[in-house]
Amino acid sequence: MELNKNTKILIVGLGLMGGSYAQALTDKGFEVGAMARRQESIDYALEKGLISHGRCTPDPEYIGQFDLLIFALYPHTFLEWLRDNQRYIKPNALITDVTGVKCSVVYKVQEMLRSDLEYIGAHPMAGRELSGVEYATKEIFSGANYIVTPTAKNTPEAIDFCKKLGYEMGFNTVSELSPEEHDEMIGFLSQLAHCIAVSLMVCKDSRRLVDYTGDSFRDLTRIAKINDLMWSELFLLNKEQLLAQMDLFMEKFTQLRDDIARDDTEAIREMMRLSKQRREYFDIKEEKK
Amino acid sequence: MELNKNTKILIVGLGLMGGSYAQALTDKGFEVGAMARRQESIDYALEKGLISHGRCTPDPEYIGQFDLLIFALYPHTFLEWLRDNQRYIKPNALITDVTGVKCSVVYKVQEMLRSDLEYIGAHPMAGRELSGVEYATKEIFSGANYIVTPTAKNTPEAIDFCKKLGYEMGFNTVSELSPEEHDEMIGFLSQLAHCIAVSLMVCKDSRRLVDYTGDSFRDLTRIAKINDLMWSELFLLNKEQLLAQMDLFMEKFTQLRDDIARDDTEAIREMMRLSKQRREYFDIKEEKK
Repeated sequence: MELNKNTKILIVGLGLMGGSYAQALTDKGFEVGAMARRQESIDYALEKGLISHGRCTPDPEYIGQFDLLIFALYPHTFLEWLRDNQRYIKPNALITDVTGVKCSVVYKVQEMLRSDLEYIGAHPMAGRELSGVEYATKEIFSGANYIVTPTAKNTPEAIDFCKKLGYEMGFNTVSELSPEEHDEMIGFLSQLAHCIAVSLMVCKDSRRLVDYTGDSFRDLTRIAKINDLMWSELFLLNKEQLLAQMDLFMEKFTQLRDDIARDDTEAIREMMRLSKQRREYFDIKEEKK
Repeated sequence: MELNKNTKILIVGLGLMGGSYAQALTDKGFEVGAMARRQESIDYALEKGLISHGRCTPDPEYIGQFDLLIFALYPHTFLEWLRDNQRYIKPNALITDVTGVKCSVVYKVQEMLRSDLEYIGAHPMAGRELSGVEYATKEIFSGANYIVTPTAKNTPEAIDFCKKLGYEMGFNTVSELSPEEHDEMIGFLSQLAHCIAVSLMVCKDSRRLVDYTGDSFRDLTRIAKINDLMWSELFLLNKEQLLAQMDLFMEKFTQLRDDIARDDTEAIREMMRLSKQRREYFDIKEEKK
């Protein structure tokens, strides 16, 4: 199967991410349909031209017409949806998703899937601190990273297809990681970052802080405005990796604390120099983009 | 003493912050002079119109002509400079500073100062991840907070003067805190944030991370590009408060870790809801500005 303008695409789940995918793909000339829980989401997406058509209930005939299905649901609803409705999917269709954890999803989906269907996992490293299709915009993909997470069960064609999809939507970098590598990476880069932001934000009542703060604290806590339902599910589905990354961070933080406690200027400065050097590498790589 | 267009201002220390003050005050019509370690800094500031004149060595006659002296030096050099040169300062001049810690500076300076001079501490909550006058810009004050830290030794006139100075330079909010309140606040809002960013950035080699990261990690580590000489000095000068704030953060972080470890969804979600609520208060207050 090849990604071309005849590929009919169904987005299942029309929230911030599903809506942003819909806009990116519709604007590229694809025929995009959607399934959502609420009729208002479909109406909004139709009115804004994000989709060509949509449904609120699993209409077998409707579902059966799509070549590519993209799931933008919470992990547990993704699995439930497939269990209930995969029998309606067109033979040989391709399935992908946006789920933020992989090991606990990818293997289960591939295990339960009809043998003529192929599922390949993907994770768009983009988002906003807002939920709902009303905030959807393809702009969030510009400059962002997109990760494809194939397993031994995936065909080279599907991997290639999924990567092209990432570039088509405007992502800056498209990479390939195993589900295991992905979960370690995301446990560190994204989930740990959210744990830090939340822990920092609950330390004190914020009312008095706002008149005294600089940009540092604002930047560190931007993601503290968190969707508790989604993130608690993602945390627990990647529990082992997340705990390992939290412990790694705590080890470094405790080391710095102890260096400060015993006035070890040289040790503090050494850690700061390493930090500066590693952060500068980010800037160099980003300037190249 | 009143702040008016005849107030002649000397900036001692012409780095990022001294240069930004110089620009803001020159643009407001004040006559601004500067003292710097390097002639190149003076030359650059003259060429860019940040100052009207400057010196590299403590010329008694030059120093003696200013009504207001603003110190933008590292804490220990601030104290050394005053010890060596305060005898040249004009009688009844006012002194302020930009130092990021207060208790360990303010009382020492007020203790050692000539009885006809008055020193009032201030802390501009603004900055960049860059050092040197070449990066100076008054733009960093726009929307930022400015904190004045008077003690019982300060006159109402000096407090008023210092607040006006903050508004004059374009700060958005000017507040008053005791040196003790300031150090607790800044230990939490700024120093702890820097400790977190540094600890996070040194956890792993960054080369592989850049292709997978989202904005969360980038935002959390922006300040990890840290000036090790300045920040290690600031950390140790506020050691007691900083350690208390680090311990507070570690307590919340450990609580979240333990909630995740025992799959306590409700406890995780409760912390996230509090975090979201407290972060939203920031946005509300900032929209009002």
